[in-house]
Amino acid sequence: MNYRMITYIMGQILRIVGLCMLLPLVVGAIYGEHHIFASFVIPAGITLLLSVIFTIKKPKNTAVFSMEGFVSVAASWITMSAIGALPFFISGEIPKYIDAFFETVSGFTTTGSTILSDVESMSRSSMFWRAFTHWLGGMGVLMFVLAVMNSNDVRTMHMMRAECPGPNVGRLVSKSSFSARILYGIYIVMTALEITILRILGMPFYDAVIHSFSSAGTGGFSMWNDSIAHYNSLAIEMTVAVFIILFGINFNLYYYLIIRKFALVFKNEELRVYIGLIVLSTAVLTCTVLENYSSWGESLRKSFFMVASTITSTGFSTTDTSNWSEFSQTLLLLLMFVGSCAGSTGGGIKVSRILIIVKTGIRELKYIVSPRAVASVKIDGKPVEKDVVRGASNYFILFMLIFVASVLLISHDKYSIEENISAVTTCINNIGFGVGSFSTSGNFSGLDPFSKLILCFDMLIGRLEIYPLIMLFAWKRH
Amino acid sequence: MNYRMITYIMGQILRIVGLCMLLPLVVGAIYGEHHIFASFVIPAGITLLLSVIFTIKKPKNTAVFSMEGFVSVAASWITMSAIGALPFFISGEIPKYIDAFFETVSGFTTTGSTILSDVESMSRSSMFWRAFTHWLGGMGVLMFVLAVMNSNDVRTMHMMRAECPGPNVGRLVSKSSFSARILYGIYIVMTALEITILRILGMPFYDAVIHSFSSAGTGGFSMWNDSIAHYNSLAIEMTVAVFIILFGINFNLYYYLIIRKFALVFKNEELRVYIGLIVLSTAVLTCTVLENYSSWGESLRKSFFMVASTITSTGFSTTDTSNWSEFSQTLLLLLMFVGSCAGSTGGGIKVSRILIIVKTGIRELKYIVSPRAVASVKIDGKPVEKDVVRGASNYFILFMLIFVASVLLISHDKYSIEENISAVTTCINNIGFGVGSFSTSGNFSGLDPFSKLILCFDMLIGRLEIYPLIMLFAWKRH
Repeated sequence: MNYRMITYIMGQILRIVGLCMLLPLVVGAIYGEHHIFASFVIPAGITLLLSVIFTIKKPKNTAVFSMEGFVSVAASWITMSAIGALPFFISGEIPKYIDAFFETVSGFTTTGSTILSDVESMSRSSMFWRAFTHWLGGMGVLMFVLAVMNSNDVRTMHMMRAECPGPNVGRLVSKSSFSARILYGIYIVMTALEITILRILGMPFYDAVIHSFSSAGTGGFSMWNDSIAHYNSLAIEMTVAVFIILFGINFNLYYYLIIRKFALVFKNEELRVYIGLIVLSTAVLTCTVLENYSSWGESLRKSFFMVASTITSTGFSTTDTSNWSEFSQTLLLLLMFVGSCAGSTGGGIKVSRILIIVKTGIRELKYIVSPRAVASVKIDGKPVEKDVVRGASNYFILFMLIFVASVLLISHDKYSIEENISAVTTCINNIGFGVGSFSTSGNFSGLDPFSKLILCFDMLIGRLEIYPLIMLFAWKRH
Repeated sequence: MNYRMITYIMGQILRIVGLCMLLPLVVGAIYGEHHIFASFVIPAGITLLLSVIFTIKKPKNTAVFSMEGFVSVAASWITMSAIGALPFFISGEIPKYIDAFFETVSGFTTTGSTILSDVESMSRSSMFWRAFTHWLGGMGVLMFVLAVMNSNDVRTMHMMRAECPGPNVGRLVSKSSFSARILYGIYIVMTALEITILRILGMPFYDAVIHSFSSAGTGGFSMWNDSIAHYNSLAIEMTVAVFIILFGINFNLYYYLIIRKFALVFKNEELRVYIGLIVLSTAVLTCTVLENYSSWGESLRKSFFMVASTITSTGFSTTDTSNWSEFSQTLLLLLMFVGSCAGSTGGGIKVSRILIIVKTGIRELKYIVSPRAVASVKIDGKPVEKDVVRGASNYFILFMLIFVASVLLISHDKYSIEENISAVTTCINNIGFGVGSFSTSGNFSGLDPFSKLILCFDMLIGRLEIYPLIMLFAWKRH
């Protein structure tokens, strides 16, 4: 294990986080929130100091393998959450540190679960920081480091793989820092586009920035207690829904559009299934929640938004789903597990993994009948590598094992089995809302500190896709 | 597809079922329930007539491959459930046919879920038949056919595999009909032993037979509304608990004991984990349910019985678990998925599969770090064949897909998400009780016919381990 290189990478990541923590100061200056300055300056100072200590000397041995990639990413995400929580804690806006930590992990992992019962009482600076954690966590902070680092080391792929979601990661171009720059470029342009459109639709600029950051990371933090429903505007709802769906698509496809490889986009099986699932679920829900609304149009509007918000793992809401039928709520819970496309900012198991898993299941049925006549699993018409198939199945197995262990561990708390299942489902899939006490009208503050830590672990497991976290805790054994 | 051979096998199975349906007449004669005779004679007559038609001419081509094995087993189990339900329906003891069908599927699959709110009002003959379905379904009716058929055809293995639970089936001896006879011999001796001990402990003979049949099949039907708690006897509870644990052990191990291969038994990893899980879960539950009982002793007594009843998928109860804490109920739900040993009469995913799955997950973690240095999954210190590992993983995947689809399909009904999850859990794992409306104090009569059919499908999926049922419904495509 190359410890020096791990701390070096952590130092790079902390520098970005430290600099980003100075951004809320600009917001504070604009809105005259001078009392809150210290809450950001102190943690930013600590972060930048740590960063300098970690990066003052470049290690002689820059070799980075899977293990170093995983461990440095996991350690960085935990450290940046621990530090990112300080502004909320120092300013007193979140009195308990564990709550501030939960909120920040929820932010960086783009989960959007909150412990706040009244979001609206927050200062504008802290609100900005809260939404910004979504934006930074969405595309990944290590990806940002790669984008600015100008590394041409092929081994940085190991780090990219540790932070980038999906069953297999292909670089867009041969140089990974250039790939990272393209991805961040697309990300920034799309975020700017959403801010512009929301502004045109009449949303105040500050609101547009907050909600665009949340959309881009498919996070779900809003600045209003009733989330997007606050604006009561069909145009805003549809804009947000379309953008989160776009942010839930594999970013590689946007690159293909830019370089005019349209066929690669239109033939993409994951994209088709993703869109198909959204259309189908919206249609089914529109029928099943009709009784809750006055017209088909309203039912369609609410259903489409909630499907988009759920499958992309965003967690914005325009309605209180706890009034929905059990069937409708169960459907939403299942969509949470599916999640969005690989290589997007969305969470869940990912459409492509689910596709591989379902096809593997069907192949097993054929295998049982005639073991000799079995074709390989195909995606986009091409056979999937055996390693990727095995990886997807085993990812599912580990995911389910962690899922049930988490449900058991938080079941000592005072909530029902149903609420516990929904809490773990929403956290491990990075959505934001569950059912019952954790529905869109509730929050996570009632859990005890142990349960909150378990859910923080689940959120990180979901965002970093299991391996980095496990490697961090198991590293001494290697 | 060899259709003639499928009907021939079905005919053999129906003959056994038809003859078994005459047994309740003996009970009826003893207890003077002459009014109930017709309810058994008519369906028995139909069954035997069908059997004669199906078997009047032995097919020339006796070739049986996987597909024929799966399809004939699945078709037989559905047919015998449909016919086995007739006595309850004709006698009027279960007025709705769908309820009688549910009860019979629950019997043959050794689930033990009931639609009866007052079990005690049943006639002694019907009660006997109800318990006997557990006994016959436990070891398997096809296994019985094999035992009496004196076939020396190696191809009958395909049929044995379709009905016998576990990741891989090894014949005890080279001739499969002889294997089946050994297994049934052990089964009969153990059942007789339990009847004898319960009789000695003061249980009336009829009661001892009913509860021993239920224990042997790890079914769970009792003749009392409050199940085993009715006797309020520590000795009876412990006897039943020990016997169901014994029936949850791979029967091959008993054969090894008989032929004095003790080392094979003591080194058996599945057995160790099974016993370990029982001890550990009992210890944890004793502490967590202590608040519900007056002493440590009572808490231990209730915990041990419920753990034994749950992990073996029996479903007897000595206490109302709906008063237990959420943690305790969650633990029981998880034990349901684990289930008992392969090659036993118990249900669930099976300890050996869970072992392989967990080890596969751990191996994946090692693989992620260093793909070249990965050893194979080992059970009993020996590497498990790749096909078995792949089979266990894919079984788990298919199991979970069917599980979530079932939860979604019954969620249109009037129960909570928690109750729906527990209903599917208890049915697909062949336990018998869930939580809330389906807890030990409730029953399944409130579900609508569609939900009942879905749960019947799940019970058969669980007992026959997925493939036979799927093959039956998919067979035209091959």
